[in-house]
Amino acid sequence: MGAHTSFEGPPQAGTAPTGGSEPERAFSLAAERLLLGRMLASVGNPPLRVLLWDGQEIGDSANPQAPRLVIADRAALLKLMADPEYRFGELYVTRRIDVQGDLCEFLEILFRALPRPRTMGMKERLLAPLRVRRNPPQRALENIHHHYDIGNPFYRLWLDPQLVYTCAYFADPQATLEQAQIGKMDYICRKLRLRPGETVVEAGCGWGALALHMARHHGVRVRAYNLSGEQLEHARAQAREQGLQDRVEFVQRDYRTIDGRFDAFVSVGMLEHVGLDDYAELGALIHRCLAPQGRGLIHSIGRDQAGSMNAWIERHIFPGACPPSLSQMMTLFEPNGLSVLDVENLRLHYARTLEHWLSRFDAASAQVQQLFDADFVRTWRLYLAGSLASFRAGDLQLYQVAFSRNGCNHIPWSRHDLYATNGSADATL
Amino acid sequence: MGAHTSFEGPPQAGTAPTGGSEPERAFSLAAERLLLGRMLASVGNPPLRVLLWDGQEIGDSANPQAPRLVIADRAALLKLMADPEYRFGELYVTRRIDVQGDLCEFLEILFRALPRPRTMGMKERLLAPLRVRRNPPQRALENIHHHYDIGNPFYRLWLDPQLVYTCAYFADPQATLEQAQIGKMDYICRKLRLRPGETVVEAGCGWGALALHMARHHGVRVRAYNLSGEQLEHARAQAREQGLQDRVEFVQRDYRTIDGRFDAFVSVGMLEHVGLDDYAELGALIHRCLAPQGRGLIHSIGRDQAGSMNAWIERHIFPGACPPSLSQMMTLFEPNGLSVLDVENLRLHYARTLEHWLSRFDAASAQVQQLFDADFVRTWRLYLAGSLASFRAGDLQLYQVAFSRNGCNHIPWSRHDLYATNGSADATL
Repeated sequence: MGAHTSFEGPPQAGTAPTGGSEPERAFSLAAERLLLGRMLASVGNPPLRVLLWDGQEIGDSANPQAPRLVIADRAALLKLMADPEYRFGELYVTRRIDVQGDLCEFLEILFRALPRPRTMGMKERLLAPLRVRRNPPQRALENIHHHYDIGNPFYRLWLDPQLVYTCAYFADPQATLEQAQIGKMDYICRKLRLRPGETVVEAGCGWGALALHMARHHGVRVRAYNLSGEQLEHARAQAREQGLQDRVEFVQRDYRTIDGRFDAFVSVGMLEHVGLDDYAELGALIHRCLAPQGRGLIHSIGRDQAGSMNAWIERHIFPGACPPSLSQMMTLFEPNGLSVLDVENLRLHYARTLEHWLSRFDAASAQVQQLFDADFVRTWRLYLAGSLASFRAGDLQLYQVAFSRNGCNHIPWSRHDLYATNGSADATL
Repeated sequence: MGAHTSFEGPPQAGTAPTGGSEPERAFSLAAERLLLGRMLASVGNPPLRVLLWDGQEIGDSANPQAPRLVIADRAALLKLMADPEYRFGELYVTRRIDVQGDLCEFLEILFRALPRPRTMGMKERLLAPLRVRRNPPQRALENIHHHYDIGNPFYRLWLDPQLVYTCAYFADPQATLEQAQIGKMDYICRKLRLRPGETVVEAGCGWGALALHMARHHGVRVRAYNLSGEQLEHARAQAREQGLQDRVEFVQRDYRTIDGRFDAFVSVGMLEHVGLDDYAELGALIHRCLAPQGRGLIHSIGRDQAGSMNAWIERHIFPGACPPSLSQMMTLFEPNGLSVLDVENLRLHYARTLEHWLSRFDAASAQVQQLFDADFVRTWRLYLAGSLASFRAGDLQLYQVAFSRNGCNHIPWSRHDLYATNGSADATL
């Protein structure tokens, strides 16, 4: 990862080489503090403090309990100022910047200070036409491989036992992660009004937990698509173990190859990986494969307002990903004869899910470091904490969208059955 | 309404003057039948029959029980062929065309045959830039006056006793209209999580039923805006009668004049009258007037896909109106720092509501004719039946959208409380 100043705790004054005469250093420091002040103003003057390598502190000191940013050397400060969105992650991983105190709290304060509603900066506007808006099959394969094929043992360290890597549903906020992931799968089945003997196609099935849950608890036959070989290996083993291999078929192909007709279409946590310009095609595919009285559900991270992914996350965590706004999601349904029945925003449930993941991840950090290295731990910790802060601050949303074909009257009369105390999934349509 | 051929039942052969020699008449008839066949093909060949003035029938005779269209004379046929969307209503009102059998059923068959997803025809594309997309205050006033100021006695004949002129909510499909309108008002209050002592602003309050309901049953103070003088007169009388004049203020001004800060914003059945290009301004207004922890709900007719209002309805019933698609609705929320929490599509509830209205309207048609005239009865019957058929066929939707300010975490944890069996409105946020 190249040379970097590593440190624990606040740096000592004068640890970084500053060079030049005393007056030159003083001038240079004053200039840096001015620039740092400008940078903080440009992100809405978050009520946070910044500790510099020479022991000096700038920023809001009204709340001394708030976490503070520590910058290890002058070059790190200059890099951060040049491109805070991207460089923050890079400098954090290599320990040239750090956060004293709770990282999530720090990031939430930072995100909440950003001016809303957001307007695109000059750089964002200039780069917008260059952003990837399509993920053709080969690129989709590489993107998925990058994130999901880094090893099942890693994900086993901090996900629930069924390896459900999407927002859980905490009917009771105090539920365990295991309970809430089962709760989410069952909630989706209720929203889909699954009935025994029906057929379901799932686009992007992860480690297969939902497909297996649907077959086991709702008596349906499932064909589930995924590009990740590591995930499907686990899913197929689970199907055999549970004796469901005749009712759940796992297919290692791109969602674009889905064919046939199904009573239900479901996709949980895949749309984020579909390019915005590929939505129309996905919508047409759904229309083709949905039976006349079929039901569908798409579960996806989204945004209150269209915007691009954080550049560091896009580069290091989720290449090609983009959480859509609702109007962007509608380009999937509206031109394709689909009718939106129900949209639920589960943002706070994703924050709760991430609290569980982060705490398990932290508890397993020594093992993660053994599997990879310290930089990897720091990268993933920042990604999980940043996601948590984004859901808390409202920068990210979680949408569940239920739909049918346009004009289909075989739809639920109301939502009462979803919340029936017996939790029955046998809703009358 | 000018000269027209009035008739009851199917016309006799030869009632219309055709002129010319026998071969000329035969040729002319053959040409008309060809054109009529083309017109039917252009609307998707609905399984319907058409009876011409000379007693001949064309179209689909597979289902002899289906209602059929009767055309009284050659000129009516030519007019209908030239512009079916607009002329159907005009010719129907003046009885130059009629429907034998159930009008709603006829229209639903017609609407369902139309190709989906819709693509704009040449005429629609050419006219699109000319369509009204803004309703400035003076035009808004005229539009509202046209529909809502035609007399409270008229609306009393067929609405429920509280004069609620928007989609009801039938928790039980067999509920009466009265019960379902109260059910709708209470459902909205639950979605808004109203608590005693809070303040609410309502944009477009009709005859005031919801504003009075909120104050009476949920202990809030309401300021309610409406342009219609006739409606507000009734609303104010009701407030005095119920002793609520200190807690509900009815304001006869355009929604654009709303100021102040409120715990909740609600608008039921007004957005249809707001021009699409005025949405951004309305969204900014909502953002301004919503308290930091405020909640909002917009209830509006909409569409699965953007499209223009039927030209005859736009001219004769609802000038300036346009039911938006969800992505069009999002132009209200997304640029304005608002976060969509919940979208519910109540399309089938509007169909049920319209069944009640139409049956009451039919029962009161003699009284309506006394208040106005026979053409008025026919105009409104076609509008009500056409709306019912549109909701049944999926051409129209009914969206309830609940929202908060972006990043507000004082939002409902789940929807369970909305469906609690005790129907309590005291939800915990």
